[in-house]
Amino acid sequence: MGRVTARRKVLRVRDGVFSYRPDALAAEEPLEIRVGGRPLTVTMRTPGDDFDLAAGFLVSEGVVHAAADVTAIRYCAGATADGHNTYNVVDVALAPGVPAPDASLERNFYTTSSCGLCGKASLDAVRTSAPWSVAEDPLRVAPKVLSLLPDRLRAAQRVFDRTGGLHAAGLFTAHGELLCLREDVGRHNAVDKVVGHALRTGLLPLRATVLMVSGRASFELVQKAVMAGIPVLAAVSAPSSLAVDLAEDSGLTLVGFLRGTSMNVYTGAERLEHGLAD
Amino acid sequence: MGRVTARRKVLRVRDGVFSYRPDALAAEEPLEIRVGGRPLTVTMRTPGDDFDLAAGFLVSEGVVHAAADVTAIRYCAGATADGHNTYNVVDVALAPGVPAPDASLERNFYTTSSCGLCGKASLDAVRTSAPWSVAEDPLRVAPKVLSLLPDRLRAAQRVFDRTGGLHAAGLFTAHGELLCLREDVGRHNAVDKVVGHALRTGLLPLRATVLMVSGRASFELVQKAVMAGIPVLAAVSAPSSLAVDLAEDSGLTLVGFLRGTSMNVYTGAERLEHGLAD
Repeated sequence: MGRVTARRKVLRVRDGVFSYRPDALAAEEPLEIRVGGRPLTVTMRTPGDDFDLAAGFLVSEGVVHAAADVTAIRYCAGATADGHNTYNVVDVALAPGVPAPDASLERNFYTTSSCGLCGKASLDAVRTSAPWSVAEDPLRVAPKVLSLLPDRLRAAQRVFDRTGGLHAAGLFTAHGELLCLREDVGRHNAVDKVVGHALRTGLLPLRATVLMVSGRASFELVQKAVMAGIPVLAAVSAPSSLAVDLAEDSGLTLVGFLRGTSMNVYTGAERLEHGLAD
Repeated sequence: MGRVTARRKVLRVRDGVFSYRPDALAAEEPLEIRVGGRPLTVTMRTPGDDFDLAAGFLVSEGVVHAAADVTAIRYCAGATADGHNTYNVVDVALAPGVPAPDASLERNFYTTSSCGLCGKASLDAVRTSAPWSVAEDPLRVAPKVLSLLPDRLRAAQRVFDRTGGLHAAGLFTAHGELLCLREDVGRHNAVDKVVGHALRTGLLPLRATVLMVSGRASFELVQKAVMAGIPVLAAVSAPSSLAVDLAEDSGLTLVGFLRGTSMNVYTGAERLEHGLAD
Protein backbone atom coordinates (compact mmCIF):
# COMPACT_ATOMS: atom_id res chain seq x y z
CA MET A 1 0.00 0.00 0.00
CA GLY A 2 2.68 2.52 0.98
CA ARG A 3 0.07 4.62 2.73
CA VAL A 4 0.27 3.21 6.24
CA THR A 5 2.61 6.03 7.14
CA ALA A 6 3.08 9.49 5.70
CA ARG A 7 6.14 11.72 5.95
CA ARG A 8 5.92 15.36 7.00
CA LYS A 9 8.46 17.99 7.98
CA VAL A 10 8.29 18.77 11.68
CA LEU A 11 9.82 21.41 13.95
CA ARG A 12 11.42 19.70 16.92
CA VAL A 13 11.79 21.71 20.10
CA ARG A 14 14.14 20.27 22.71
CA ASP A 15 14.90 22.44 25.71
CA GLY A 16 14.32 25.60 23.70
CA VAL A 17 16.43 24.48 20.73
CA PHE A 18 14.60 24.48 17.37
CA SER A 19 15.41 22.07 14.54
CA TYR A 20 13.58 20.77 11.49
CA ARG A 21 13.50 17.14 10.42
CA PRO A 22 11.23 14.71 8.57
CA ASP A 23 8.84 12.66 10.69
CA ALA A 24 6.74 9.55 9.96
CA LEU A 25 3.06 9.85 10.82
CA ALA A 26 0.36 7.23 11.06
CA ALA A 27 -1.82 7.67 7.99
CA GLU A 28 -5.49 8.43 8.56
CA GLU A 29 -8.04 8.55 5.75
CA PRO A 30 -11.79 8.02 5.52
CA LEU A 31 -13.08 4.65 4.35
CA GLU A 32 -16.63 4.39 3.10
CA ILE A 33 -18.11 0.91 3.42
CA ARG A 34 -20.86 0.08 0.95
CA VAL A 35 -22.97 -3.05 0.85
CA GLY A 36 -24.42 -4.01 -2.52
CA GLY A 37 -23.56 -0.53 -3.76
CA ARG A 38 -25.40 1.26 -0.93
CA PRO A 39 -23.31 3.43 1.45
CA LEU A 40 -23.48 2.07 5.01
CA THR A 41 -20.89 3.91 7.07
CA VAL A 42 -17.71 5.96 6.98
CA THR A 43 -14.83 5.31 9.34
CA MET A 44 -11.58 7.21 9.73
CA ARG A 45 -8.92 4.53 9.42
CA THR A 46 -5.31 3.80 8.56
CA PRO A 47 -5.23 2.48 4.98
CA GLY A 48 -4.35 -1.20 4.63
CA ASP A 49 -6.32 -4.39 5.24
CA ASP A 50 -9.41 -2.51 4.12
CA PHE A 51 -11.26 -5.65 3.01
CA ASP A 52 -10.65 -7.16 6.46
CA LEU A 53 -11.93 -3.94 8.02
CA ALA A 54 -15.11 -3.95 5.95
CA ALA A 55 -15.75 -7.64 6.63
CA GLY A 56 -15.06 -7.24 10.35
CA PHE A 57 -17.34 -4.24 10.61
CA LEU A 58 -20.16 -6.33 9.15
CA VAL A 59 -19.45 -9.11 11.66
CA SER A 60 -19.57 -6.59 14.50
CA GLU A 61 -22.91 -5.32 13.25
CA GLY A 62 -24.35 -8.82 12.98
CA VAL A 63 -24.73 -8.73 9.20
CA VAL A 64 -22.40 -11.64 8.33
CA HIS A 65 -21.14 -14.62 10.31
CA ALA A 66 -19.32 -16.88 7.85
CA ALA A 67 -16.98 -16.52 4.88
CA ALA A 68 -19.75 -17.74 2.59
CA ASP A 69 -21.94 -14.78 3.56
CA VAL A 70 -19.65 -12.54 1.51
CA THR A 71 -19.20 -13.22 -2.21
CA ALA A 72 -16.86 -10.32 -3.06
CA ILE A 73 -15.22 -7.21 -1.67
CA ARG A 74 -13.71 -4.67 -4.02
CA TYR A 75 -12.51 -1.08 -4.18
CA CYS A 76 -14.91 1.15 -6.07
CA ALA A 77 -13.15 2.59 -9.08
CA GLY A 78 -14.48 5.81 -10.46
CA ALA A 79 -15.57 7.16 -7.10
CA THR A 80 -14.19 10.55 -8.05
CA ALA A 81 -15.34 12.89 -10.79
CA ASP A 82 -12.28 12.10 -12.90
CA GLY A 83 -12.68 8.34 -12.46
CA HIS A 84 -9.68 8.03 -10.15
CA ASN A 85 -9.77 5.20 -7.61
CA THR A 86 -9.08 6.72 -4.20
CA TYR A 87 -8.98 3.29 -2.54
CA ASN A 88 -11.17 4.87 0.12
CA VAL A 89 -14.45 3.25 -0.91
CA VAL A 90 -15.08 -0.50 -0.66
CA ASP A 91 -18.18 -2.36 -1.72
CA VAL A 92 -19.17 -5.67 -0.14
CA ALA A 93 -21.37 -8.10 -2.10
CA LEU A 94 -23.43 -10.36 0.14
CA ALA A 95 -24.38 -13.91 -0.78
CA PRO A 96 -27.97 -14.55 -1.94
CA GLY A 97 -30.22 -14.89 1.10
CA VAL A 98 -28.07 -12.73 3.40
CA PRO A 99 -30.22 -9.73 4.32
CA ALA A 100 -28.61 -6.37 3.57
CA PRO A 101 -28.17 -4.18 6.64
CA ASP A 102 -30.52 -1.33 7.33
CA ALA A 103 -28.71 1.82 6.20
CA SER A 104 -29.72 3.45 9.47
CA LEU A 105 -28.31 0.52 11.43
CA GLU A 106 -25.44 2.45 12.92
CA ARG A 107 -27.60 5.09 14.48
CA ASN A 108 -30.37 2.73 15.53
CA PHE A 109 -28.10 0.19 17.08
CA TYR A 110 -28.31 1.71 20.52
CA THR A 111 -31.77 3.13 20.11
CA THR A 112 -35.00 1.33 20.78
CA SER A 113 -38.21 3.27 20.90
CA SER A 114 -39.48 1.35 23.90
CA CYS A 115 -36.48 1.82 26.14
CA GLY A 116 -35.07 5.19 25.24
CA LEU A 117 -31.40 4.83 25.83
CA CYS A 118 -29.99 2.85 28.66
CA GLY A 119 -27.19 0.38 29.02
CA LYS A 120 -29.71 -2.45 29.00
CA ALA A 121 -30.93 -1.59 25.50
CA SER A 122 -27.38 -1.73 24.21
CA LEU A 123 -26.76 -5.06 25.90
CA ASP A 124 -29.93 -6.56 24.49
CA ALA A 125 -29.11 -5.43 20.98
CA VAL A 126 -25.77 -7.20 21.06
CA ARG A 127 -26.82 -10.36 22.81
CA THR A 128 -29.66 -11.15 20.49
CA SER A 129 -27.72 -10.62 17.28
CA ALA A 130 -24.75 -12.90 18.01
CA PRO A 131 -25.30 -16.37 16.54
CA TRP A 132 -23.01 -18.00 19.12
CA SER A 133 -22.36 -17.58 22.80
CA VAL A 134 -18.96 -16.93 24.32
CA ALA A 135 -20.39 -17.89 27.72
CA GLU A 136 -20.26 -21.54 26.68
CA ASP A 137 -16.58 -21.45 25.71
CA PRO A 138 -14.75 -23.76 28.16
CA LEU A 139 -11.39 -22.04 27.60
CA ARG A 140 -9.05 -21.75 30.57
CA VAL A 141 -6.01 -19.51 30.40
CA ALA A 142 -2.99 -19.15 32.67
CA PRO A 143 -2.18 -15.69 34.08
CA LYS A 144 1.42 -16.44 33.10
CA VAL A 145 0.38 -16.68 29.46
CA LEU A 146 -1.63 -13.44 29.62
CA SER A 147 1.34 -11.62 31.07
CA LEU A 148 3.34 -12.46 27.94
CA LEU A 149 0.86 -10.87 25.54
CA PRO A 150 1.59 -7.12 25.88
CA ASP A 151 5.25 -7.62 24.97
CA ARG A 152 4.37 -9.97 22.14
CA LEU A 153 1.83 -7.50 20.78
CA ARG A 154 4.33 -4.67 20.98
CA ALA A 155 7.08 -6.72 19.36
CA ALA A 156 4.83 -7.56 16.43
CA GLN A 157 3.78 -3.96 15.82
CA ARG A 158 5.67 -2.82 12.80
CA VAL A 159 4.34 0.67 12.40
CA PHE A 160 4.10 1.92 15.96
CA ASP A 161 7.81 2.23 16.44
CA ARG A 162 7.99 4.56 13.49
CA THR A 163 5.00 6.76 14.33
CA GLY A 164 4.04 6.25 17.97
CA GLY A 165 0.52 6.73 16.73
CA LEU A 166 -1.15 3.40 16.05
CA HIS A 167 -3.34 1.13 18.10
CA ALA A 168 -2.93 -2.62 17.81
CA ALA A 169 -5.19 -5.63 18.21
CA GLY A 170 -3.67 -9.09 18.39
CA LEU A 171 -5.43 -12.43 18.35
CA PHE A 172 -3.67 -15.13 20.38
CA THR A 173 -4.16 -18.78 21.21
CA ALA A 174 -4.56 -19.80 24.86
CA HIS A 175 -0.87 -20.67 24.76
CA GLY A 176 0.11 -17.15 23.74
CA GLU A 177 0.82 -17.77 20.07
CA LEU A 178 0.00 -14.82 17.84
CA LEU A 179 -2.58 -15.69 15.17
CA CYS A 180 -3.22 -12.27 13.67
CA LEU A 181 -2.18 -8.68 14.34
CA ARG A 182 -3.63 -5.50 12.87
CA GLU A 183 -2.85 -1.83 13.48
CA ASP A 184 -4.90 1.32 12.99
CA VAL A 185 -5.29 4.87 14.27
CA GLY A 186 -8.64 3.64 15.61
CA ARG A 187 -8.66 0.80 18.13
CA HIS A 188 -12.10 -0.35 16.91
CA ASN A 189 -10.77 -0.53 13.35
CA ALA A 190 -7.79 -2.64 14.43
CA VAL A 191 -10.23 -5.10 16.04
CA ASP A 192 -12.53 -5.11 13.00
CA LYS A 193 -9.51 -5.90 10.80
CA VAL A 194 -8.61 -8.90 12.98
CA VAL A 195 -12.19 -10.15 13.02
CA GLY A 196 -12.65 -9.58 9.28
CA HIS A 197 -9.48 -11.54 8.56
CA ALA A 198 -10.89 -14.39 10.65
CA LEU A 199 -14.21 -14.27 8.84
CA ARG A 200 -12.58 -14.34 5.42
CA THR A 201 -10.38 -17.31 6.35
CA GLY A 202 -13.30 -19.27 7.77
CA LEU A 203 -12.28 -19.04 11.42
CA LEU A 204 -15.45 -17.65 13.01
CA PRO A 205 -16.47 -18.11 15.77
CA LEU A 206 -13.04 -17.52 17.30
CA ARG A 207 -13.41 -20.01 20.14
CA ALA A 208 -10.56 -20.54 22.61
CA THR A 209 -8.77 -17.34 21.61
CA VAL A 210 -7.62 -14.23 23.46
CA LEU A 211 -7.88 -10.77 21.91
CA MET A 212 -5.27 -8.34 23.22
CA VAL A 213 -5.67 -4.61 22.55
CA SER A 214 -3.46 -1.62 23.22
CA GLY A 215 -5.04 1.08 25.35
CA ARG A 216 -8.47 0.88 26.93
CA ALA A 217 -11.42 -1.47 26.66
CA SER A 218 -14.65 0.28 25.71
CA PHE A 219 -18.16 -1.10 25.37
CA GLU A 220 -17.62 -1.18 21.61
CA LEU A 221 -14.58 -3.45 21.83
CA VAL A 222 -16.34 -5.92 24.12
CA GLN A 223 -19.24 -5.95 21.67
CA LYS A 224 -16.91 -6.75 18.78
CA ALA A 225 -15.24 -9.58 20.72
CA VAL A 226 -18.63 -11.08 21.62
CA MET A 227 -19.88 -10.86 18.04
CA ALA A 228 -16.74 -12.68 16.84
CA GLY A 229 -17.08 -15.39 19.49
CA ILE A 230 -13.86 -14.44 21.31
CA PRO A 231 -14.09 -15.52 24.99
CA VAL A 232 -11.24 -13.42 26.47
CA LEU A 233 -10.49 -9.74 25.89
CA ALA A 234 -7.37 -8.27 27.49
CA ALA A 235 -6.40 -4.59 27.47
CA VAL A 236 -3.29 -2.72 28.54
CA SER A 237 -5.40 -0.04 30.17
CA ALA A 238 -8.76 0.50 31.90
CA PRO A 239 -12.19 -0.75 30.87
CA SER A 240 -15.30 1.41 31.09
CA SER A 241 -18.32 0.56 33.23
CA LEU A 242 -20.45 -0.44 30.24
CA ALA A 243 -17.65 -2.61 28.88
CA VAL A 244 -17.69 -4.52 32.16
CA ASP A 245 -21.49 -4.73 32.18
CA LEU A 246 -21.61 -6.17 28.66
CA ALA A 247 -18.75 -8.58 29.36
CA GLU A 248 -20.53 -9.81 32.50
CA ASP A 249 -23.79 -10.17 30.64
CA SER A 250 -22.19 -12.07 27.75
CA GLY A 251 -19.95 -14.40 29.70
CA LEU A 252 -16.77 -12.85 28.32
CA THR A 253 -13.60 -12.69 30.43
CA LEU A 254 -12.43 -9.08 30.57
CA VAL A 255 -8.89 -8.35 31.72
CA GLY A 256 -7.61 -4.79 32.18
CA PHE A 257 -4.37 -3.09 33.24
CA LEU A 258 -2.44 -6.07 31.92
CA ARG A 259 1.15 -5.06 32.66
CA GLY A 260 3.93 -7.48 33.46
CA THR A 261 2.64 -10.11 35.88
CA SER A 262 -0.06 -7.75 37.12
CA MET A 263 -3.64 -7.58 35.84
CA ASN A 264 -7.22 -6.88 36.88
CA VAL A 265 -9.89 -9.41 35.94
CA TYR A 266 -13.26 -7.67 35.78
CA THR A 267 -15.50 -10.50 34.62
CA GLY A 268 -15.30 -14.21 33.86
CA ALA A 269 -12.54 -14.82 36.41
CA GLU A 270 -13.36 -18.54 36.36
CA ARG A 271 -11.35 -18.80 33.13
CA LEU A 272 -8.14 -17.84 34.95
CA GLU A 273 -6.09 -20.87 35.97
CA HIS A 274 -5.00 -20.55 39.55
CA GLY A 275 -2.05 -22.89 39.73
CA LEU A 276 0.75 -22.96 42.28
CA ALA A 277 3.25 -23.42 39.48
CA ASP A 278 2.69 -19.83 38.33
CA MET B 1 -24.58 13.22 38.98
CA GLY B 2 -22.74 10.46 40.81
CA ARG B 3 -22.36 8.54 37.58
CA VAL B 4 -18.94 9.67 36.44
CA THR B 5 -17.48 6.57 38.02
CA ALA B 6 -18.96 3.17 38.79
CA ARG B 7 -17.75 0.63 41.31
CA ARG B 8 -17.27 -3.04 40.45
CA LYS B 9 -15.66 -5.99 42.18
CA VAL B 10 -12.44 -7.00 40.46
CA LEU B 11 -10.03 -9.93 40.75
CA ARG B 12 -6.51 -8.61 41.12
CA VAL B 13 -3.68 -10.87 40.04
CA ARG B 14 -0.22 -9.85 41.22
CA ASP B 15 2.62 -12.29 40.54
CA GLY B 16 0.22 -15.21 40.61
CA VAL B 17 -1.54 -14.13 43.81
CA PHE B 18 -5.33 -13.72 43.49
CA SER B 19 -7.33 -11.21 45.55
CA TYR B 20 -10.70 -9.52 45.21
CA ARG B 21 -11.31 -5.84 45.83
CA PRO B 22 -13.66 -3.06 44.68
CA ASP B 23 -12.48 -0.92 41.78
CA ALA B 24 -13.64 2.43 40.40
CA LEU B 25 -14.35 2.46 36.67
CA ALA B 26 -14.93 5.34 34.30
CA ALA B 27 -18.63 5.36 33.52
CA GLU B 28 -19.64 4.93 29.88
CA GLU B 29 -23.24 5.28 28.69
CA PRO B 30 -24.87 6.21 25.41
CA LEU B 31 -26.10 9.78 24.93
CA GLU B 32 -28.63 10.48 22.23
CA ILE B 33 -28.56 14.06 20.98
CA ARG B 34 -31.81 15.34 19.53
CA VAL B 35 -32.42 18.67 17.84
CA GLY B 36 -35.97 19.98 17.97
CA GLY B 37 -37.10 16.52 19.03
CA ARG B 38 -35.44 14.75 16.08
CA PRO B 39 -32.68 12.23 16.86
CA LEU B 40 -29.37 13.37 15.37
CA THR B 41 -26.65 11.13 16.78
CA VAL B 42 -25.69 8.77 19.57
CA THR B 43 -22.32 8.95 21.27
CA MET B 44 -20.86 6.69 23.96
CA ARG B 45 -19.80 9.11 26.68
CA THR B 46 -19.09 9.51 30.37
CA PRO B 47 -22.18 11.06 31.98
CA GLY B 48 -21.75 14.64 33.17
CA ASP B 49 -21.65 17.99 31.35
CA ASP B 50 -24.10 16.50 28.86
CA PHE B 51 -25.51 19.88 27.82
CA ASP B 52 -21.98 21.08 27.09
CA LEU B 53 -21.40 17.92 25.09
CA ALA B 54 -24.56 18.39 23.02
CA ALA B 55 -23.80 22.07 22.40
CA GLY B 56 -20.17 21.37 21.51
CA PHE B 57 -21.16 18.60 19.11
CA LEU B 58 -23.39 21.07 17.27
CA VAL B 59 -20.53 23.58 17.10
CA SER B 60 -18.24 20.90 15.66
CA GLU B 61 -20.85 20.08 13.04
CA GLY B 62 -21.29 23.71 12.07
CA VAL B 63 -24.91 23.91 13.26
CA VAL B 64 -24.47 26.62 15.92
CA HIS B 65 -21.85 29.32 16.46
CA ALA B 66 -23.13 31.54 19.28
CA ALA B 67 -24.94 31.14 22.58
CA ALA B 68 -28.02 32.81 21.08
CA ASP B 69 -28.31 30.01 18.49
CA VAL B 70 -29.51 27.69 21.26
CA THR B 71 -32.63 28.56 23.22
CA ALA B 72 -32.79 25.53 25.51
CA ILE B 73 -31.19 22.18 26.23
CA ARG B 74 -33.00 19.64 28.39
CA TYR B 75 -33.05 15.97 29.29
CA CYS B 76 -35.95 14.11 27.74
CA ALA B 77 -38.15 12.71 30.46
CA GLY B 78 -40.28 9.75 29.55
CA ALA B 79 -37.79 8.31 27.12
CA THR B 80 -38.45 4.85 28.53
CA ALA B 81 -41.64 2.83 28.40
CA ASP B 82 -42.27 3.44 32.09
CA GLY B 83 -41.64 7.19 31.83
CA HIS B 84 -38.31 7.00 33.64
CA ASN B 85 -35.73 9.66 32.76
CA THR B 86 -32.50 7.87 31.93
CA TYR B 87 -30.59 11.16 31.57
CA ASN B 88 -29.22 9.63 28.38
CA VAL B 89 -31.28 11.65 25.91
CA VAL B 90 -30.91 15.42 25.49
CA ASP B 91 -32.93 17.67 23.23
CA VAL B 92 -31.54 20.94 21.89
CA ALA B 93 -33.94 23.70 20.86
CA LEU B 94 -32.48 26.01 18.21
CA ALA B 95 -33.33 29.71 17.96
CA PRO B 96 -35.73 30.77 15.18
CA GLY B 97 -33.82 31.16 11.94
CA VAL B 98 -31.11 28.62 12.82
CA PRO B 99 -31.43 25.79 10.28
CA ALA B 100 -31.83 22.35 11.82
CA PRO B 101 -29.10 19.92 10.83
CA ASP B 102 -29.71 17.27 8.24
CA ALA B 103 -30.33 14.04 10.14
CA SER B 104 -27.95 12.30 7.77
CA LEU B 105 -25.27 14.89 8.49
CA GLU B 106 -23.01 12.58 10.36
CA ARG B 107 -22.74 10.10 7.55
CA ASN B 108 -22.65 12.67 4.79
CA PHE B 109 -20.06 14.85 6.40
CA TYR B 110 -17.18 13.17 4.67
CA THR B 111 -19.11 12.16 1.59
CA THR B 112 -19.58 14.23 -1.48
CA SER B 113 -21.03 12.63 -4.57
CA SER B 114 -18.62 14.41 -6.89
CA CYS B 115 -15.42 13.54 -5.10
CA GLY B 116 -15.97 10.10 -3.66
CA LEU B 117 -13.91 10.05 -0.53
CA CYS B 118 -10.56 11.66 -0.27
CA GLY B 119 -8.82 13.75 2.31
CA LYS B 120 -9.53 16.84 0.24
CA ALA B 121 -13.28 16.36 0.48
CA SER B 122 -13.04 16.18 4.26
CA LEU B 123 -10.91 19.30 4.38
CA ASP B 124 -13.29 21.23 2.15
CA ALA B 125 -16.30 20.27 4.23
CA VAL B 126 -14.70 21.64 7.36
CA ARG B 127 -13.17 24.77 5.90
CA THR B 128 -16.36 26.02 4.32
CA SER B 129 -18.56 25.56 7.36
CA ALA B 130 -16.44 27.45 9.91
CA PRO B 131 -17.65 31.05 10.26
CA TRP B 132 -14.24 32.25 11.43
CA SER B 133 -10.66 31.50 10.51
CA VAL B 134 -7.98 30.40 12.93
CA ALA B 135 -5.35 31.28 10.32
CA GLU B 136 -5.87 34.96 11.11
CA ASP B 137 -5.29 34.55 14.84
CA PRO B 138 -2.09 36.50 15.66
CA LEU B 139 -1.44 34.48 18.85
CA ARG B 140 2.17 33.74 19.75
CA VAL B 141 2.98 31.22 22.44
CA ALA B 142 6.22 30.40 24.25
CA PRO B 143 7.45 26.78 24.18
CA LYS B 144 8.09 27.21 27.90
CA VAL B 145 4.37 27.81 28.48
CA LEU B 146 3.38 24.80 26.36
CA SER B 147 5.70 22.58 28.34
CA LEU B 148 3.73 23.42 31.50
CA LEU B 149 0.39 22.27 30.11
CA PRO B 150 0.58 18.45 30.38
CA ASP B 151 1.27 18.61 34.11
CA ARG B 152 -1.42 21.23 34.62
CA LEU B 153 -3.93 19.14 32.70
CA ARG B 154 -3.05 16.06 34.69
CA ALA B 155 -3.21 17.90 38.01
CA ALA B 156 -6.68 19.18 37.21
CA GLN B 157 -8.03 15.75 36.25
CA ARG B 158 -10.17 14.62 39.12
CA VAL B 159 -11.42 11.32 37.82
CA PHE B 160 -8.41 9.87 36.06
CA ASP B 161 -6.52 9.13 39.24
CA ARG B 162 -9.39 7.01 40.43
CA THR B 163 -10.06 5.09 37.21
CA GLY B 164 -7.06 5.46 34.89
CA GLY B 165 -9.64 5.42 32.16
CA LEU B 166 -10.57 8.96 31.14
CA HIS B 167 -9.33 11.29 28.49
CA ALA B 168 -9.04 15.00 29.23
CA ALA B 169 -9.25 18.19 27.21
CA GLY B 170 -8.13 21.46 28.76
CA LEU B 171 -8.51 24.95 27.39
CA PHE B 172 -5.67 27.31 28.36
CA THR B 173 -4.72 30.95 27.82
CA ALA B 174 -1.46 31.73 26.04
CA HIS B 175 0.01 32.21 29.51
CA GLY B 176 -0.88 28.70 30.58
CA GLU B 177 -3.89 29.49 32.76
CA LEU B 178 -6.57 26.81 32.71
CA LEU B 179 -9.93 28.12 31.51
CA CYS B 180 -11.91 24.88 31.30
CA LEU B 181 -11.26 21.16 31.73
CA ARG B 182 -13.51 18.27 30.78
CA GLU B 183 -13.03 14.49 31.01
CA ASP B 184 -14.63 11.62 29.12
CA VAL B 185 -14.00 8.05 27.99
CA GLY B 186 -13.97 9.54 24.48
CA ARG B 187 -11.38 12.19 23.64
CA HIS B 188 -13.74 13.76 21.08
CA ASN B 189 -16.44 14.06 23.75
CA ALA B 190 -14.05 15.77 26.16
CA VAL B 191 -13.30 18.35 23.46
CA ASP B 192 -16.98 18.80 22.60
CA LYS B 193 -17.69 19.42 26.29
CA VAL B 194 -15.03 22.15 26.44
CA VAL B 195 -16.29 23.76 23.23
CA GLY B 196 -19.93 23.50 24.30
CA HIS B 197 -19.14 25.18 27.61
CA ALA B 198 -17.49 28.00 25.68
CA LEU B 199 -20.48 28.35 23.37
CA ARG B 200 -22.93 28.49 26.24
CA THR B 201 -20.90 31.14 28.08
CA GLY B 202 -20.56 33.30 24.97
CA LEU B 203 -16.84 32.71 24.41
CA LEU B 204 -16.81 31.55 20.78
CA PRO B 205 -14.66 31.90 18.77
CA LEU B 206 -11.96 30.87 21.23
CA ARG B 207 -9.26 33.18 19.90
CA ALA B 208 -5.82 33.26 21.53
CA THR B 209 -6.34 29.96 23.36
CA VAL B 210 -4.53 26.64 23.45
CA LEU B 211 -6.40 23.33 23.60
CA MET B 212 -4.43 20.56 25.29
CA VAL B 213 -5.59 16.95 24.93
CA SER B 214 -4.42 13.70 26.47
CA GLY B 215 -3.40 11.03 23.98
CA ARG B 216 -3.29 11.49 20.24
CA ALA B 217 -4.47 14.15 17.81
CA SER B 218 -6.81 12.81 15.13
CA PHE B 219 -8.38 14.56 12.17
CA GLU B 220 -11.57 14.84 14.19
CA LEU B 221 -9.92 16.77 17.03
CA VAL B 222 -8.28 19.24 14.66
CA GLN B 223 -11.65 19.73 13.01
CA LYS B 224 -13.28 20.49 16.37
CA ALA B 225 -10.55 23.00 17.28
CA VAL B 226 -10.92 24.77 13.94
CA MET B 227 -14.71 24.93 14.23
CA ALA B 228 -14.35 26.49 17.71
CA GLY B 229 -11.79 29.03 16.51
CA ILE B 230 -8.95 27.62 18.64
CA PRO B 231 -5.58 28.48 17.03
CA VAL B 232 -3.32 26.00 18.87
CA LEU B 233 -3.92 22.30 19.53
CA ALA B 234 -1.38 20.40 21.64
CA ALA B 235 -1.40 16.66 22.28
CA VAL B 236 0.61 14.40 24.56
CA SER B 237 0.96 11.86 21.78
CA ALA B 238 1.16 11.55 17.99
CA PRO B 239 -1.02 13.22 15.35
CA SER B 240 -2.28 11.39 12.28
CA SER B 241 -1.45 12.40 8.72
CA LEU B 242 -4.91 13.82 8.06
CA ALA B 243 -4.81 15.78 11.32
CA VAL B 244 -1.62 17.45 10.06
CA ASP B 245 -3.11 18.05 6.62
CA LEU B 246 -6.21 19.73 8.02
CA ALA B 247 -4.17 21.78 10.52
CA GLU B 248 -1.89 22.97 7.70
CA ASP B 249 -4.85 23.78 5.51
CA SER B 250 -6.65 25.68 8.28
CA GLY B 251 -3.72 27.64 9.68
CA LEU B 252 -3.87 25.88 13.04
CA THR B 253 -0.73 25.26 15.06
CA LEU B 254 -0.50 21.54 15.83
CA VAL B 255 1.87 20.35 18.54
CA GLY B 256 2.42 16.67 19.28
CA PHE B 257 4.50 14.57 21.69
CA LEU B 258 4.38 17.42 24.19
CA ARG B 259 6.38 15.97 27.08
CA GLY B 260 8.45 18.04 29.46
CA THR B 261 10.44 20.61 27.48
CA SER B 262 10.25 18.46 24.37
CA MET B 263 7.64 18.75 21.60
CA ASN B 264 7.10 18.37 17.86
CA VAL B 265 5.43 21.22 15.98
CA TYR B 266 3.76 19.85 12.86
CA THR B 267 2.10 22.98 11.49
CA GLY B 268 1.89 26.70 12.22
CA ALA B 269 5.38 26.83 13.75
CA GLU B 270 5.40 30.62 13.26
CA ARG B 271 3.28 30.88 16.42
CA LEU B 272 6.11 29.45 18.53
CA GLU B 273 8.17 32.18 20.19
CA HIS B 274 11.83 31.48 19.69
CA GLY B 275 13.42 33.54 22.44
CA LEU B 276 16.86 33.12 23.97
CA ALA B 277 15.31 33.52 27.41
CA ASP B 278 13.69 30.08 27.09
